[in-house]
Amino acid sequence: MCGLNRYKLILEYDGSQFQGWQRLGQAPSVQGALEQAVFALTGARADVIGAGRTDSGVHARGQVAHVDIAKPFAPQRLCDALNAHLRPHRVAVLRAEAADSGFHARFDAIRRIYHYRIINRRSPLVIERGLAWRVVRPLDAEAMAVAAQRLVGAHDFTTFRDSKCQAKSPMKTLDVARVVRDGVEIQFAFEARSFLHRQVRSMVGTLVEAGLGKMSADDVAAALAAKDRAYCGPVAPADGLYLMRVDY
Amino acid sequence: MCGLNRYKLILEYDGSQFQGWQRLGQAPSVQGALEQAVFALTGARADVIGAGRTDSGVHARGQVAHVDIAKPFAPQRLCDALNAHLRPHRVAVLRAEAADSGFHARFDAIRRIYHYRIINRRSPLVIERGLAWRVVRPLDAEAMAVAAQRLVGAHDFTTFRDSKCQAKSPMKTLDVARVVRDGVEIQFAFEARSFLHRQVRSMVGTLVEAGLGKMSADDVAAALAAKDRAYCGPVAPADGLYLMRVDY
Repeated sequence: MCGLNRYKLILEYDGSQFQGWQRLGQAPSVQGALEQAVFALTGARADVIGAGRTDSGVHARGQVAHVDIAKPFAPQRLCDALNAHLRPHRVAVLRAEAADSGFHARFDAIRRIYHYRIINRRSPLVIERGLAWRVVRPLDAEAMAVAAQRLVGAHDFTTFRDSKCQAKSPMKTLDVARVVRDGVEIQFAFEARSFLHRQVRSMVGTLVEAGLGKMSADDVAAALAAKDRAYCGPVAPADGLYLMRVDY
Repeated sequence: MCGLNRYKLILEYDGSQFQGWQRLGQAPSVQGALEQAVFALTGARADVIGAGRTDSGVHARGQVAHVDIAKPFAPQRLCDALNAHLRPHRVAVLRAEAADSGFHARFDAIRRIYHYRIINRRSPLVIERGLAWRVVRPLDAEAMAVAAQRLVGAHDFTTFRDSKCQAKSPMKTLDVARVVRDGVEIQFAFEARSFLHRQVRSMVGTLVEAGLGKMSADDVAAALAAKDRAYCGPVAPADGLYLMRVDY
């Protein structure tokens, strides 16, 4: 590791253009695009480690990653140079910072903030195609906001956990679960130290059941308490999900 | 015209997918996509007349058009059926309404509202690519808001008129010109009965000169008073422009 400089990168990407964060064979991935850009810039292979391994179709406005580079760069120079090499891809480095050699984008994160966008209308999305979930039937955002409060706190989130989730424990502490309507758009915000695989999309899908009047807030609380995946509503599509910020 | 039913359509589209509103040969146009959808639905050729012939790359969240159809449709049925036929294209009918046989989407409009979005940051756009104008150098939105006020009122807008503009007179009344900053985004709103060709993009480009400190509010007022295209700043790109609403 001698002579390597670690950088922290703040990233934006349009997830609809990728099979997800993680490099897996030849499928287009955010990690792969970044590692290619680093290679084009430095001539050296380096792993780019992200705070969250977002799924296919999930967007980011504040993903964080770290990477080690032998040549020292002024952070703004590194940011501009990576963006030049990323150009064909829908990923941009918003900011680069020199980081401690011990900094780890994934393990050091103490808070992750996700947003989710629903557009509640009958017509298909065109400007927001791939960037939000269209729900046709009218949603009661206030009922969703009330039900969302029942998910806040330290719980066993087994109900809202994907069957492929690799976390050792289903225990998580959800600090914030907000739902607000702005015209035809319904915006969700979730904050926690970390989330289970597909936890946000599972919670959004279940809250939509509450918004449709199919579940009461008590039903949502009971679904959580059941610790049983069968009580989860249909998982919301990736299109509406954004990793907004990671704190350290 | 006997037996024809006139409908008013409220439209959304992603202008980056089209050579503009107007059908011109084989180039993809919003009008052409709509006329194809009407033909697929009814078997009859019909002109779809829009309130504004937006340029290549310009978006709409509330363009209005009218079309005559022999078969009577419940408006919601017509809306859904057109959207089904429009599916591959980035156009959606937000609402259809039965209209008076004399209603004309273009000539009857009494107010048009355009918005323009700038994202003022160094990194390339990815989520908003094609949907906003990225300006790298820091903009003073307050200076732009002050300068914008100097354009409000009844004026000869020759300075802000494209050389290809076909309007008989350069006289227009600009009722509203608002500029507000929201984080890295700067949002403009312009309202008038009608606009000259490229007037909004010409005004935005000139106001950006004010935001960069290259022109004062007095310089912008002098540019307007000069009635000379040479005083216009560089025309802003189509990407950030949205036809938001048309009133009748």
